[in-house]
Amino acid sequence: MLKMTADELNEFLGAHFPDFEGPLAIVESVDDMIAELRLPYSSKHLRPGGTISGAALMTLADTAMYATLLAMIGPVAMAVTTSLNINFLRKPAAADVIAKTRLIKLGKRLAVGEVSLYSEGHPEMVAHATVTYSIPVN
Amino acid sequence: MLKMTADELNEFLGAHFPDFEGPLAIVESVDDMIAELRLPYSSKHLRPGGTISGAALMTLADTAMYATLLAMIGPVAMAVTTSLNINFLRKPAAADVIAKTRLIKLGKRLAVGEVSLYSEGHPEMVAHATVTYSIPVN
Amino acid sequence: MLKMTADELNEFLGAHFPDFEGPLAIVESVDDMIAELRLPYSSKHLRPGGTISGAALMTLADTAMYATLLAMIGPVAMAVTTSLNINFLRKPAAADVIAKTRLIKLGKRLAVGEVSLYSEGHPEMVAHATVTYSIPVN
Amino acid sequence: MLKMTADELNEFLGAHFPDFEGPLAIVESVDDMIAELRLPYSSKHLRPGGTISGAALMTLADTAMYATLLAMIGPVAMAVTTSLNINFLRKPAAADVIAKTRLIKLGKRLAVGEVSLYSEGHPEMVAHATVTYSIPVN
Repeated sequence: MLKMTADELNEFLGAHFPDFEGPLAIVESVDDMIAELRLPYSSKHLRPGGTISGAALMTLADTAMYATLLAMIGPVAMAVTTSLNINFLRKPAAADVIAKTRLIKLGKRLAVGEVSLYSEGHPEMVAHATVTYSIPVN
Repeated sequence: MLKMTADELNEFLGAHFPDFEGPLAIVESVDDMIAELRLPYSSKHLRPGGTISGAALMTLADTAMYATLLAMIGPVAMAVTTSLNINFLRKPAAADVIAKTRLIKLGKRLAVGEVSLYSEGHPEMVAHATVTYSIPVN
Repeated sequence: MLKMTADELNEFLGAHFPDFEGPLAIVESVDDMIAELRLPYSSKHLRPGGTISGAALMTLADTAMYATLLAMIGPVAMAVTTSLNINFLRKPAAADVIAKTRLIKLGKRLAVGEVSLYSEGHPEMVAHATVTYSIPVN
Repeated sequence: MLKMTADELNEFLGAHFPDFEGPLAIVESVDDMIAELRLPYSSKHLRPGGTISGAALMTLADTAMYATLLAMIGPVAMAVTTSLNINFLRKPAAADVIAKTRLIKLGKRLAVGEVSLYSEGHPEMVAHATVTYSIPVN
């Protein structure tokens, strides 16, 4: 059912974002309509207060949903985010961030998913996002 | 009425995000409840398709609202984004991105604003965000 | 350029929502990509605290964007809201609510707009919404 | 741990929204940080196309989160919604709508939750909302 494995997704992301600043998130596992990614801790992701920046969390949420979608539909690089809504819930620790995704709609032209973000080793959610993707019709 | 100038905001952002990857957005002008920022074009901001990444646009929107808020309340580094909602409207050109902000609520503990993003030299909006900030009570 | 006048929109809304509870919002004016609607005050719209309910404001925002869209594309009853994001900014007065809309994207299949809500006679915005509509392709 | 039962919540909602048009949603069950509500089918909730209106779904999502919050903090009528984001995923059937809620943050002044909406008897989600509530500090 899955069209791409975690390894294939990591290779794809690396190949298509060659100039991306700093380490991209790593796809750790993927399954039917869900995935788990990790953003390795880096001081580059900090903001005043010693917490992971909102920018890093939003980028992780967007990348995580993109990877989840590609796992289901294959390497369609042209799929584009149409909207993202994120609530920042708690101050993230200075640690890796884990993203757990779930697609809640996978249509022919539109996909909608939610992403829960956690600081590694902490049980409480630090942010929650819903992301909408437009899928190009070939 | 303004508590920080564009120059002071640029200095503040540079000092508080020393490890930030790549060039931060530049505050070009600031006035009562509004501001204009520029994200200089860089190949680092591209995604597949040769367009500016959603991550770069979201980071710009968040930074732009942060700068607008600090201009009104002074250098309160601990103000934190509580939510961000963005709609991606059109494929941005491979060019500088301009952010025009407007605070629509500035309370004692909560600020809400909207940000319109444009590719330099193009009249149509490429993305629109609403951002909510929590202001620490001293 | 407009495909429906304010009168035609009011007639259309009345005809297509015959069982709708209470008075629908009234389209007061419509122009290229913008419109203004009014929700007449009713005790039915109140919530604890004597303020207009969030439900009434959300319904008004959705109706206002629907009317703005129909004015541009004609009486396409099947256009459907795909997402709505609203920030409640201030406690509305026990008064009429005015909605001012602006379409920021009108594509063939997708429209995005923003709606600013005011209590009649008060200058400050009480809520701000962004709404996305899907347009059926015939 | 719970400060209000489903019966107490239904009584509270009925008492505080006496003029509300049509039947309010019914709290069917409530537990730690979660609840389930039902919006009984009515032709009043239909929109063109014979589907439940977005207005009815948004109102249900807002009411469901309000009930979930009150179950945790007690009958604080003055708690107010500060933002709501909803994605409409599928056309709801002409049937009861079921709302399943989950609080993902319950702070002293702010609560954030998500709501999944289903047509009774259909497994697929018809809409998904995230709702933010401000809790008055006494």
